[in-house]
Amino acid sequence: MSIRLGRHTIEFSSKPKILATHSIVGPKEGRGKYKEYYDDILKDDTNGKNSYEKAESSLILRAIEKTIAKAKLLESDIDYIFAGDLLNQLTSTNFAMREVDIPFFGLYGACSTMSESISLAAMIMDGNHAQYVLAGTSSHFSSAERQFRFPLEYGSQRVLTSQWTVTGSGIILLGKNGDKKLPSITQITTGKVKDYEIKDANNMGIAMVPAAANTILNHFLETGKKADYYDYILTGDLGKYGKEVLIELLKEDGIDISKNYIDCGDEIFNECEENICAGGSGCGCSAVVLTGYIYKSLLKGDFKKILLVSTGALLSTTSSLQGETIPGIAHAVAIEMI
Amino acid sequence: MSIRLGRHTIEFSSKPKILATHSIVGPKEGRGKYKEYYDDILKDDTNGKNSYEKAESSLILRAIEKTIAKAKLLESDIDYIFAGDLLNQLTSTNFAMREVDIPFFGLYGACSTMSESISLAAMIMDGNHAQYVLAGTSSHFSSAERQFRFPLEYGSQRVLTSQWTVTGSGIILLGKNGDKKLPSITQITTGKVKDYEIKDANNMGIAMVPAAANTILNHFLETGKKADYYDYILTGDLGKYGKEVLIELLKEDGIDISKNYIDCGDEIFNECEENICAGGSGCGCSAVVLTGYIYKSLLKGDFKKILLVSTGALLSTTSSLQGETIPGIAHAVAIEMI
Repeated sequence: MSIRLGRHTIEFSSKPKILATHSIVGPKEGRGKYKEYYDDILKDDTNGKNSYEKAESSLILRAIEKTIAKAKLLESDIDYIFAGDLLNQLTSTNFAMREVDIPFFGLYGACSTMSESISLAAMIMDGNHAQYVLAGTSSHFSSAERQFRFPLEYGSQRVLTSQWTVTGSGIILLGKNGDKKLPSITQITTGKVKDYEIKDANNMGIAMVPAAANTILNHFLETGKKADYYDYILTGDLGKYGKEVLIELLKEDGIDISKNYIDCGDEIFNECEENICAGGSGCGCSAVVLTGYIYKSLLKGDFKKILLVSTGALLSTTSSLQGETIPGIAHAVAIEMI
Repeated sequence: MSIRLGRHTIEFSSKPKILATHSIVGPKEGRGKYKEYYDDILKDDTNGKNSYEKAESSLILRAIEKTIAKAKLLESDIDYIFAGDLLNQLTSTNFAMREVDIPFFGLYGACSTMSESISLAAMIMDGNHAQYVLAGTSSHFSSAERQFRFPLEYGSQRVLTSQWTVTGSGIILLGKNGDKKLPSITQITTGKVKDYEIKDANNMGIAMVPAAANTILNHFLETGKKADYYDYILTGDLGKYGKEVLIELLKEDGIDISKNYIDCGDEIFNECEENICAGGSGCGCSAVVLTGYIYKSLLKGDFKKILLVSTGALLSTTSSLQGETIPGIAHAVAIEMI
């Protein structure tokens, strides 16, 4: 039986294991500091497709197929898949899903989708409703840029707080079986929508900070853990400015994450790349860092305990045009070698 | 312990109860045949807001608040809410969620969202991860029409297979407690994405039929029930033409639903309304029929066993412009007085 530690946090007695992952990224991500950890690095970010949306769809489909194959399973062994992406009506996920024969739950949590999908997959596993569940997400710079901002052909100028949407997809497979020592999902802390009335759509990292701070604070309050319990605390895509603000905000609550905190968006690109500005963003950002660098480092024994806090900015182009501020959400997932 | 009856179907031993519901609809829906069952009928479909998106958001927020109040609970008693809508980036749901202090999972399943949200809420309840969970969705004719089709000011002509998006929101509260005889979620059958290569975005009812047929077929194969087990089998929004095709398709599989089958979209509007064409559609369609007519009839004892099969067409304006066909999905939820 799992234990509810507080209003936002559940501890899983069954500790679902991550049996396999697959990470696939675009060329720019493939030149970043985590390059040796990705499974697939595209030479061409269209992946041979005739639109960026179809390219993104092909990434998530490939990540699903490769994850299942790595675990030596068949599609028919998988009970459910939880997935979503940034595109209107989950275009890339839904079109990938028609190619696979797996019961499917579509999610939208903006860039929080990786930890949202893992949270739900882990609860379903822990409740004995499934043997094998897939969870994951994707994003693509070019499909996101032209949907949320400007046509790519404009070559519009970027400001210092802009972030570069990650091209990539990460999928994990949760299961119970296997004697092998594998990373497990031990706790989840589910987020609430927080809006501190930031309106600047070119500064989404900052807009997501209150949601991240709230979820991390709830996690430590409800679990009784200290920040140094984890080898790393990772946020999704607050970027280099959001990261600094998060550290300060949590300090006010008596939580010092400055020594073991990294933001996936701040780390994912090589700093000498053009136009990265405040770092990476997108659902794919924390997805490929988790399924690449983190998962493989946990397997190698480089570290043992991490807290993944994927962060989503819940704006739409319509809401921005109607003068609305930017709400955010963040879900935390504790992953440990136990 | 719940039992997995097959690849798509789970039977819940705990049988989560529907403790309360709230249904809110626009004026046109409020003149339909189910008018006496809705809790709230708007006089003005803007609900006093200055945009249709904000109006839709206010509907789902009101439905949430009223549902919690009916159960004599507080926001702080609710463990999770599962919700989503049709708008890009779930605009109406996400902006409603910032007004409530409840851990939130955002979903996108197009018009299948009502049964998707109930399926997940029921699994989380059954797995002992929560005491109280909300599930629901909303749609609005004017926000959907201008996002997916044409500016409202065009007054564009509609074809016979067009459907009219329902303005409304329906929320249910699942819980375990209470001795009172209440409708329970007994089984769920989760859908897969099906695409029979229909391209006509003015004929979405037909595009969703293969998904509905597949889910209903799986439900009866895996549960061993016959079609006449249920007092009513309800699809979400196949409309008057889709409904006929579904009956024929299932007949080929030896399942005769012709005697106890209704489509919420086919029923929801008064036939003398202008421009309804093939019937209602939208996430809100099956949501308000369930939380209005069905829930109250179950409580009154008018009937005892229903199968709700909300149906979603997973197209986007981008996918249509890129020449893509329309994939569909459908999730089934069995609701019984037991």
